[in-house]
Amino acid sequence: MKWVRIPSGNGIRWGYRLEDGRIQLVVGEPWGSFTAEEEPVAAPTALPAPVHPRKLIAIGRNYAKHAAEKGNEVPTEPLFFLVSPTAIIADGETIRLPNREDRIEHEAELAVVIGTPGKNIPEEQAWDHIWGYTCALDITNRVQQKKDGQFTRSKSHDTFKPVGPWIETDWDPTDRTLRLWVNNELKQEGSTAEMVHSIPRLIAALSAVFPLESGDVILTGTPAGVGPLAAGDQVEMEIEGLGRLSHPVVG
Amino acid sequence: MKWVRIPSGNGIRWGYRLEDGRIQLVVGEPWGSFTAEEEPVAAPTALPAPVHPRKLIAIGRNYAKHAAEKGNEVPTEPLFFLVSPTAIIADGETIRLPNREDRIEHEAELAVVIGTPGKNIPEEQAWDHIWGYTCALDITNRVQQKKDGQFTRSKSHDTFKPVGPWIETDWDPTDRTLRLWVNNELKQEGSTAEMVHSIPRLIAALSAVFPLESGDVILTGTPAGVGPLAAGDQVEMEIEGLGRLSHPVVG
Repeated sequence: MKWVRIPSGNGIRWGYRLEDGRIQLVVGEPWGSFTAEEEPVAAPTALPAPVHPRKLIAIGRNYAKHAAEKGNEVPTEPLFFLVSPTAIIADGETIRLPNREDRIEHEAELAVVIGTPGKNIPEEQAWDHIWGYTCALDITNRVQQKKDGQFTRSKSHDTFKPVGPWIETDWDPTDRTLRLWVNNELKQEGSTAEMVHSIPRLIAALSAVFPLESGDVILTGTPAGVGPLAAGDQVEMEIEGLGRLSHPVVG
Repeated sequence: MKWVRIPSGNGIRWGYRLEDGRIQLVVGEPWGSFTAEEEPVAAPTALPAPVHPRKLIAIGRNYAKHAAEKGNEVPTEPLFFLVSPTAIIADGETIRLPNREDRIEHEAELAVVIGTPGKNIPEEQAWDHIWGYTCALDITNRVQQKKDGQFTRSKSHDTFKPVGPWIETDWDPTDRTLRLWVNNELKQEGSTAEMVHSIPRLIAALSAVFPLESGDVILTGTPAGVGPLAAGDQVEMEIEGLGRLSHPVVG
């Protein structure tokens, strides 16, 4: 199922896409127990991002070739940090580049969305806590990243986290190809099979520190080929069988 | 006013302490427009932490003597990162030390709580966005901090962020003394006047990156004197005229 968030009345509700393109709204928790009672609705031309997490967690250096291209060692255990969830935008929205004199780069990533909450989740039970998957772009100001040492600022600017277009719950994340293009030129290509620390390993390591909550998003790292974005660019990414993001870039 | 969160029915509500110790529940936004219509209620023996932020923001190296005691330079602009809000506990609750073979240290900090949301807030308007102040302990696993480089993991373990006992809205944060004791022995002492980057400067720098939202918490850094905690310790901190936190430590 392809889950989306859709404005309804004064709030936002969950729904899933039907084959005819309409959206079936539900009542309840889409990652748990829900019912679909009303008539499906027409999809609006634009939807908000399909995630609204409390914790937006990013994993560093989880593809060996990307770590190498930046001159970094692969970490022996998952290296993670938090990014502001306010940076999230929806598919199609514009990426804005503050401090555009700095080098600002694209990173294409597979995002994992948590369903059932948990603490100290063993690797072998990790799959039970995943609700679904989506595509994410991790836009990063390399100058701020290097200056700060801490990665939060360089990755938390408004519009720096495109996520979508939906949360797919019926999809196998093993050995899927990620690709990213800038102005139709292929820049990043890699497979989820190249992850240094597997998705279950990430979930075990994260939940050893803090509880994972429903809706939390884990950005699982980027393959090699990261490079700069400039005003006027069009950046697109796709994960095989999962979906595609497409974003104009302005200065 | 001293604001607290108090369990009520199936949820949690805001209220403020009256001089007789009872709590006046309110309807509305305590940092904005609210009304107090019902009869005050008796304070329960234990309250949850007075904050439940989406963003728990921490500032690094904001007191020169603390930066020096760890061999670090003072940053020329505010250095910040995000910590998991799930680590927050209330006054009186137990601090638990996972990985207690590691060196795990206390940091006493002034916490600023945001009221009116804002982006790109100028320094001279920063005070208008502050709802109030409270005390915070920033417990940190130094081994993980050094190993990761990123500070999120070492500071995000469950129970590592005691915050409270209330949010004080009538209090001047300039030149107030922070003190911390372990087993009644004074370990940390410093004044908010020693901050490298002032509170308005912090709010301007943070809101230049992401919007500050109502309820967001900023930990403004710790003065010198940080040191280890061990199972069986009792750690207490006080900020002059603001409040006091008191916590047992278990392994």
